[in-house]
Amino acid sequence: MFKGKDIVSISDLTKEHIDRIFEVARGMIPIAKGEKKSKLLDGYILANLFFEPSTRTRLSFETAMLRLGGSILGFTNPSATSLTKGETLADTIRMIDAYSDVIVIRHPLEGAARLAAEFAEVPVINAGDGAGQHPTQTLLDIFTIVEEFGHVEGLKVTLMGDLRYGRTVHSLAVALSFLGADVHLLSPRSLKMPRHVLREMKSKPEIHEQIDEVIRDTDVFYVTRIQKERFPDPTEYIKVAGSYAITGDTVKKMKKDAIIMHPLPRVNEITPDVDSTLHARYFKQAFYGVPIRMAILALVLGVI
Amino acid sequence: MFKGKDIVSISDLTKEHIDRIFEVARGMIPIAKGEKKSKLLDGYILANLFFEPSTRTRLSFETAMLRLGGSILGFTNPSATSLTKGETLADTIRMIDAYSDVIVIRHPLEGAARLAAEFAEVPVINAGDGAGQHPTQTLLDIFTIVEEFGHVEGLKVTLMGDLRYGRTVHSLAVALSFLGADVHLLSPRSLKMPRHVLREMKSKPEIHEQIDEVIRDTDVFYVTRIQKERFPDPTEYIKVAGSYAITGDTVKKMKKDAIIMHPLPRVNEITPDVDSTLHARYFKQAFYGVPIRMAILALVLGVI
Amino acid sequence: MFKGKDIVSISDLTKEHIDRIFEVARGMIPIAKGEKKSKLLDGYILANLFFEPSTRTRLSFETAMLRLGGSILGFTNPSATSLTKGETLADTIRMIDAYSDVIVIRHPLEGAARLAAEFAEVPVINAGDGAGQHPTQTLLDIFTIVEEFGHVEGLKVTLMGDLRYGRTVHSLAVALSFLGADVHLLSPRSLKMPRHVLREMKSKPEIHEQIDEVIRDTDVFYVTRIQKERFPDPTEYIKVAGSYAITGDTVKKMKKDAIIMHPLPRVNEITPDVDSTLHARYFKQAFYGVPIRMAILALVLGVI
Repeated sequence: MFKGKDIVSISDLTKEHIDRIFEVARGMIPIAKGEKKSKLLDGYILANLFFEPSTRTRLSFETAMLRLGGSILGFTNPSATSLTKGETLADTIRMIDAYSDVIVIRHPLEGAARLAAEFAEVPVINAGDGAGQHPTQTLLDIFTIVEEFGHVEGLKVTLMGDLRYGRTVHSLAVALSFLGADVHLLSPRSLKMPRHVLREMKSKPEIHEQIDEVIRDTDVFYVTRIQKERFPDPTEYIKVAGSYAITGDTVKKMKKDAIIMHPLPRVNEITPDVDSTLHARYFKQAFYGVPIRMAILALVLGVI
Repeated sequence: MFKGKDIVSISDLTKEHIDRIFEVARGMIPIAKGEKKSKLLDGYILANLFFEPSTRTRLSFETAMLRLGGSILGFTNPSATSLTKGETLADTIRMIDAYSDVIVIRHPLEGAARLAAEFAEVPVINAGDGAGQHPTQTLLDIFTIVEEFGHVEGLKVTLMGDLRYGRTVHSLAVALSFLGADVHLLSPRSLKMPRHVLREMKSKPEIHEQIDEVIRDTDVFYVTRIQKERFPDPTEYIKVAGSYAITGDTVKKMKKDAIIMHPLPRVNEITPDVDSTLHARYFKQAFYGVPIRMAILALVLGVI
Repeated sequence: MFKGKDIVSISDLTKEHIDRIFEVARGMIPIAKGEKKSKLLDGYILANLFFEPSTRTRLSFETAMLRLGGSILGFTNPSATSLTKGETLADTIRMIDAYSDVIVIRHPLEGAARLAAEFAEVPVINAGDGAGQHPTQTLLDIFTIVEEFGHVEGLKVTLMGDLRYGRTVHSLAVALSFLGADVHLLSPRSLKMPRHVLREMKSKPEIHEQIDEVIRDTDVFYVTRIQKERFPDPTEYIKVAGSYAITGDTVKKMKKDAIIMHPLPRVNEITPDVDSTLHARYFKQAFYGVPIRMAILALVLGVI
C-alpha cells in the first residue's frame, strides 16, 4: 500500500492511508521520545534537499530518521549546490536518486516536489513547495487533534490569523472538511481564506471576523502568524495583529478542554503566559512531527 | 598496498592499484544501490573538508561512507570555519587529523591536497584542487568505460567541448593514453587541450575541430561544458557551444554501441532528448562515483 | 551525580565532578583515537546549535559523539534558521528539546546557554556564550596539564597574551587558582586580566609585562592570540604582538620540561619552528577535547 509511494500532496492519501500512518505513528511515540531504541531503518539513507531554509521541518525529519537508526545526507543551502552552475532540478534529482533511499524536498516553487517525484525512482516526500502543499504538516496537525479528542468528526475547529498566505491552513481546511469537522474561519477581511480553497472543501465553513463569535464553543483553535509585511500601514498591522492574538485573557473565555495549536514559529500571536495553561498544545504538536515522519519513512521504505 | 595511502593524483596509482580499486568497486555495486547492507566501515569517521562547494562530489563521498556503515563530519562553507581567523591550512589539517580516520579535501588552490597529505597522519583523498587533480573523478570515468566495454585498450575515445579549462579531461586524457585508448580531442581552437597535457600523454592524440570528423566511429564521447564566461562575445559563445552540443540528431550518426559520458552538471551541451537513448551513460557514470569511492575508502582504511 | 546535569559554567562543577570527568576521559582516549570501537551512545542524538561559527569546538563534539556510536543533528548557520522569522531562543530550545537527547549550544550572547538550560529538559552543554563561559575548553585545558604533570597544584602556570578579551583564560585562571596552581599573568598593559576575574580567583596572581620575568621557571605557558582589531595603531600592534610571541629562540630559555599550550587557532603568536620542539602541546591539547567531551556526553546522558 505504501512501499515506494511519493507523498507530494495530502490528496495523494486516502482515509485508509491516513489511518494507517496514524496507527504506525502511535507505535513510534516511545522511540521518538528516546525511551525505546530502534534499528528499523539501519542502512537506509535519507536525502534532505532544502532549497530554502526550514530548520524545524528539516530537523524533525532528521530526528525521525536517526531515531530509527537511519542516516542522512543533503544540503540546506541552495547557493552551495551545483544548481548555481545552471543544472536543472531534474538532473539534481537524478543524481540524488542514485545516492539515497528516500528524498525529502523543500523548494520555493510550487510543483517542484511533483517534478522531483517524476524523476526519482526512490520515494519523494514533499516538505513544502512554495504556496503549494506541505502534507506531513497537515498530517501532524490532524494527528494532534486525533490524539487529543480521539476523533475529528463533529469537532468545532477554528482556523485563525492569516488564512490567505498561511500555507499550512489551506490543505488543513480541506482535510478537516473531509474528515467531518465543523470548520470555522476567523481572519481580518484582507487575509481571508482564498476562494479556491473554499471550493475544494467538502462543506461550507462559517466565516468570522471577531474572535468573540467563536471563543466560547471552539474545541480547537489553530492559530497562524499574521506577518507585518502584509500590511502597507504599520499601525494597521499592530491593530489587526492584536485583535487576533491569543493571550492569558482570551484563554479564560475558552471551553475547559479547548486546545490551542500553532504550526510554529510563533511571534506575538500567542503570548508566553498561554504556554503554561492546560490549553497549549503547540509544543506537543511540534513533537508529533517526529512520530508522524517516522511512520511515513518506515511505510514508504516498505519496512513495515 | 593501500592501507594509509594518500590519493592526491591519479599518477600516485599504478595499473595494479587501479585494477584492484575496480575489482573492489565491482563488489560494492549492490551495496551502493542499497540492495545489500554493509557494516564494513562501522566506527570509522570521514572528514569532508570542502573549501569550495561541490555538491555532487561531497554527496557521493558521503553516500559511499554511509552505505558502508561509517560516519561523516566536516564543513562545506569555508566562511564558517576558523580559517577566517587566519589559521593556516596546515593547522586546520592537524586538527581534523585528530578527529577523523580519513580526510577528503576539496580546495580552490592547486597543491592544497598534497600539503594536507603531508600534515595528516590519516589518509587524504583529493576531491579536486583548483586547476589540479581530481583523481576519484578520473577513476570513475575509466571505470564506466571498463564496465561498458570490458577494456579501454583500442577504444576510440573522443574528449570534446572545453578541453582547455575543463579540469577533469586533463588527467583523463593522460590516463587513457597510458591505458592504450585511441584518444581524439575535439574542441574550438580557443579551448584546445593545453600543451603540457599533450606532453604528458603516452601517445599523440588526433586533434579535431568538427564533430563530423569523429561522429561515426567514436566508441566513447566524453562531453564537457563550454562556459559562457570564456567568451568575450556572447554571440560567439552561442555559435561555438551549439556546434559542440550532442542532440538527438547527432546521436543518429553514432555507432550503435557508442556511449556518451559527461562529468555533470550539464547545461545545454547534451539536450534532454538524448537522455532516453541507449547511448546516454552520464547518469550511470555519476552513480559509479559511489562504488569507486566506497572501494577507495575501504582500501585506504585497510579494512579490505 | 551527572545524569541530566547541565554544564553551563565551570563553577557548576565540584572538584569531585572534575576528577570523575578526567577519570572517564582517560578511559576514552583509545576510543577517541579510533583504536577501539564503542557503541556506548548508540541510539542517542546530540543537537549542535551553533548560533555563531566555531569549527574546532563543533567538530570535536561531533567526533566525540560519533566515536561513541551516537548521532548528530543541528545547524551551524543561524541565518538559515527559523530565528530569522523572529522566534525566541526559548521556543527554539523547546523544539530542539523534543528532537534530541543532549544539546550543545554556542551563542554570541552571554547567558544564552543558561537560558537554554532552563527551557530544555535534556542536558545542555555550553560551548561558549559571548564573553561568558566555555567550560569544556577549561576542562580540556586542565586535563592537558594533569596528563602531563600528574597534578596542577604547585605548578607555575603563566597565562599570556590577550588576557582582557581572551575568553578562555578567564575561567581557566579562576579554576587554576582553586586547584592550587601558582598563576602568573603576562600581558601588555592595555590587555590586562579584568579585575572581576582577579577577584574571583582564590589567590592573588603575580602580574608581569615582560616575558623574561617568567621564561626560566614557568612550567606551563598558556598562550592566547593578540588580535589586531584591539589596537587603534597597527604599528603598535606589531610591536606588542611581537614581544609576546613564542619563537624558537624563546623556547631555548625555557625549563627542560616546560610545556606550551594554546586554545587554537593560532596565528603568529607561536611560530611554526616551535611545533617540532618537545615543549609544544597545543595539538595534543586540541586532541584532548575529544575524550573530555566524550566523558561529559556519556556522564550527562547517564550511560556511565
